[in-house]
Amino acid sequence: MDDMRKVGSSFLSDELFFADEQEPSRSRVVPGWKLLIVDDEEEVHVITRMVLEGLTFSGKGLTFLSAYSAAQARELLRGNDDIAVILLDVVMETGQAGLELVEFIRSELGNRSVRIILRTGQPGQAPEREVITRYDINDYKHKTELTAQKLFSTVTTAIRSYRDLNVIEKSRQGLNLIISSTRGLFERRNMALFAQGVLDQMSSLLRVNEDCLFLHSPSGFAATVRDGDISVLAGTGEFGHCGMEETACVLDDSVTLVLQQALRQRGGVFGEDSFVQYFRSRRGSENLLYFRLDRSLNAFERRLVEVFSGNVAIALDNMLLNTELLHSQKEIILTLGECVESRSKETAGHVRRVSECCRLLASELGFDSPEVDLVRLASPMHDVGKIGIPDSILLKPGKLTMEEFEIMKTHTLLGHQILKGSSRPIMQAAAVIAHEHHERWNGSGYPLGLAGQDIHPYGRIVCLVDVFDSLLSRRVYKEPWPLDQVRGFILAERGEMFDPHMVDTMMRQLDAFVAIRQDFPD
Amino acid sequence: MDDMRKVGSSFLSDELFFADEQEPSRSRVVPGWKLLIVDDEEEVHVITRMVLEGLTFSGKGLTFLSAYSAAQARELLRGNDDIAVILLDVVMETGQAGLELVEFIRSELGNRSVRIILRTGQPGQAPEREVITRYDINDYKHKTELTAQKLFSTVTTAIRSYRDLNVIEKSRQGLNLIISSTRGLFERRNMALFAQGVLDQMSSLLRVNEDCLFLHSPSGFAATVRDGDISVLAGTGEFGHCGMEETACVLDDSVTLVLQQALRQRGGVFGEDSFVQYFRSRRGSENLLYFRLDRSLNAFERRLVEVFSGNVAIALDNMLLNTELLHSQKEIILTLGECVESRSKETAGHVRRVSECCRLLASELGFDSPEVDLVRLASPMHDVGKIGIPDSILLKPGKLTMEEFEIMKTHTLLGHQILKGSSRPIMQAAAVIAHEHHERWNGSGYPLGLAGQDIHPYGRIVCLVDVFDSLLSRRVYKEPWPLDQVRGFILAERGEMFDPHMVDTMMRQLDAFVAIRQDFPD
Repeated sequence: MDDMRKVGSSFLSDELFFADEQEPSRSRVVPGWKLLIVDDEEEVHVITRMVLEGLTFSGKGLTFLSAYSAAQARELLRGNDDIAVILLDVVMETGQAGLELVEFIRSELGNRSVRIILRTGQPGQAPEREVITRYDINDYKHKTELTAQKLFSTVTTAIRSYRDLNVIEKSRQGLNLIISSTRGLFERRNMALFAQGVLDQMSSLLRVNEDCLFLHSPSGFAATVRDGDISVLAGTGEFGHCGMEETACVLDDSVTLVLQQALRQRGGVFGEDSFVQYFRSRRGSENLLYFRLDRSLNAFERRLVEVFSGNVAIALDNMLLNTELLHSQKEIILTLGECVESRSKETAGHVRRVSECCRLLASELGFDSPEVDLVRLASPMHDVGKIGIPDSILLKPGKLTMEEFEIMKTHTLLGHQILKGSSRPIMQAAAVIAHEHHERWNGSGYPLGLAGQDIHPYGRIVCLVDVFDSLLSRRVYKEPWPLDQVRGFILAERGEMFDPHMVDTMMRQLDAFVAIRQDFPD
Repeated sequence: MDDMRKVGSSFLSDELFFADEQEPSRSRVVPGWKLLIVDDEEEVHVITRMVLEGLTFSGKGLTFLSAYSAAQARELLRGNDDIAVILLDVVMETGQAGLELVEFIRSELGNRSVRIILRTGQPGQAPEREVITRYDINDYKHKTELTAQKLFSTVTTAIRSYRDLNVIEKSRQGLNLIISSTRGLFERRNMALFAQGVLDQMSSLLRVNEDCLFLHSPSGFAATVRDGDISVLAGTGEFGHCGMEETACVLDDSVTLVLQQALRQRGGVFGEDSFVQYFRSRRGSENLLYFRLDRSLNAFERRLVEVFSGNVAIALDNMLLNTELLHSQKEIILTLGECVESRSKETAGHVRRVSECCRLLASELGFDSPEVDLVRLASPMHDVGKIGIPDSILLKPGKLTMEEFEIMKTHTLLGHQILKGSSRPIMQAAAVIAHEHHERWNGSGYPLGLAGQDIHPYGRIVCLVDVFDSLLSRRVYKEPWPLDQVRGFILAERGEMFDPHMVDTMMRQLDAFVAIRQDFPD
């Protein structure tokens, strides 16, 4: 202690010492490197603070924390995971209290970043060579050798080490965040949700670097290029209102300029107070991500932004590919269904309405989302078997003879035959629907005469929806029925032709089913 | 220097000093922490080595490197990016040579992990407070204060700091590797390629931790569960032969046991000398990744393996979803095509053969892979317009009248009409094909009488392939033609009905086209 004590004592009064003891842990509010002094002698705290008061490193000063025992230090360490340096006495409650604290910090708290400088007044209690080898400390000083200059040097290099660890740790955290946020993006199944996800994750990423405190969330938006115009998909911060009502989002000229620069360069632009990332999908669609900051990004942040953007590009391509596949699949199925229906002069609208009504009914019945999608996709194929029915029967304007009707009935078997060859879930579902959509709840249907729960739910759904839409439509052999008459027919057939529970479910939401007719008119 | 020099000098002869000067940079081959001594006094090197010779940290000793000037140190630093600690003199070639070297290391080399201990004999040249603040060094010692004990302590804590930095850095590298390798996995479009990718990336990941040197690549395999049996998809190392011939890969009982444990637990198993990761896809398929090591993984490696496995699970689900969608799409299209063809009593085989022959021809013509896929997928829909042709014409056994043929021709227009409503690339391609697959190179085709390059390439491809397959097949109105006769017909129509370049391309690969008939017989 010698020389430090000499310097300190002359300046400080006893009152201040006592005041300090009653309020042992003080901290300045100015943000800075946290330095924890652990020593049972108040004088050591006072002198240490005095010597280090003016120390700044990398533009930040020190924030002092004080503990007068190992026990008190434990409490402070639990509450502060961002302490940079500890100046640690060895002999306090016990002769080894300081060394035990080292064990606690590294093993129990798992804090491997705080730099620990052991300061011992009684080297006999903690022989240097043994202590330095056995304990995970970062410096060992005899109190006698710690002049003001040495203390300054030791703490400066310790903060520097802490900073070095922190820089890599921030990078590691950034990469970790990129990994977890990318996973989330792969779950997003449409462009608006995807864009919002990217904005949220980029905002989090920009907050990783604690040196640059964002008091507010960063502001930014995601946009896509449609017919040469930049259209905002989603926004955050001051652009938070964008995306909901696209027209309401007018971009400043300065913003538009930097977006156009990115489009020209087909690459990202890092500016003074904003940056743009550019994404071109495999199919050539162009997308932009814009963020406004109150400063430029440092090299570390640029790197994180670029790594994340690389992942976004892959996830975006993937999402677009999936969306494209799903849309294609849906349209091909509808084309197949409409193609077949067109022979019997039914309108294209019928197939689409059946599909949407099946979706609605399955959803109202509580099916889970993949199964709702399955029914929606498979139902337009319910009549493919009609392809095998001759024109003479299919297009006959009058009533069919018994023999003709027997042939007509085979469209359920033919459809089943055509579809069942594939093991794909959609085709399997479509095969069941083709087979069973003319079965009746009371067992009087065809081709098998199944009854009640023996009929597959998909078959029961399509049976009800198909009849519902056909009655409301004009056909070669009939005029459209008024809604009341259709409702009456369906209720009369509740438990006869139709599953009673399904009829009840449809009736509760009848307006929604009728509304589908407006969306897909004949 | 005082006390060190005293200790050292008494042991060492002058000859050894000179020998050292002629071979300035020595390094021991035993792997250990690299310590670089930079000093223009040979004696300092000798004594430093002597004092630190016995130092071990974390089970590893020191490997000494020596430089006698800043220039020599630059060379050594360029060639060794894994130096842990530098003991650096200040005054060498110039009064500031040591300090300039610090700048070089941090800024030019970008090496932020090596711990630099400045040892100065002339503090006047490098005042402590200024140097410690201005230069990115990690310790500052006067040579006078560096006793053997202090040198030991200083180097030990410096290595510890380096180790701390390295632990996080390895983790950061691991995460970085996970990000880049995951990207690659999203490009893999089938299970075998995917499995191989996962194996390769996991092997790289296991090599990140330099403390555990793998002399050979790790051994492992990826497997899937089929009908309750574990089937190996791909292997690496000692399992490298697996996956090629699945039957040849017999697993040890010990391996099977740990795989079964993972299946029971539906989770990963980390064993003494192996580990298993378990992946259950959204559709319920079960997949396993097995690696054998000569040791157990440490906590850090387990964490990396688990993070990577989390990404693999997402990529796998995604790949399976894509594959499912692609397969469904293909089968729905084939069903649509076959459905329509079935009316005219053509066989299901025709549509599939046309599809495959189109793929082959497009590929031979040098189309890129997405376009080859597009032609393959769109071509089965070429005759959908036949849905609108009455039975009386479509099924007429004899020759059609002029009027009947005019109606028959409308199937190209009807098909175009049915398909063009969709903006999906597949449907757009199919619409073009439906429209133009009866146009002829010489302009004598229908419906528009287009000629040569004015006919869309897809139309020309399907025209050639459709005729080729029809001639080789039995039809209600004709027997199959022998191959020679078909070849003769196509060559005769080269430049008449068919694009001459396409005919030449087909003729060069005729065997391959004929082989497709064997794969998809009538």
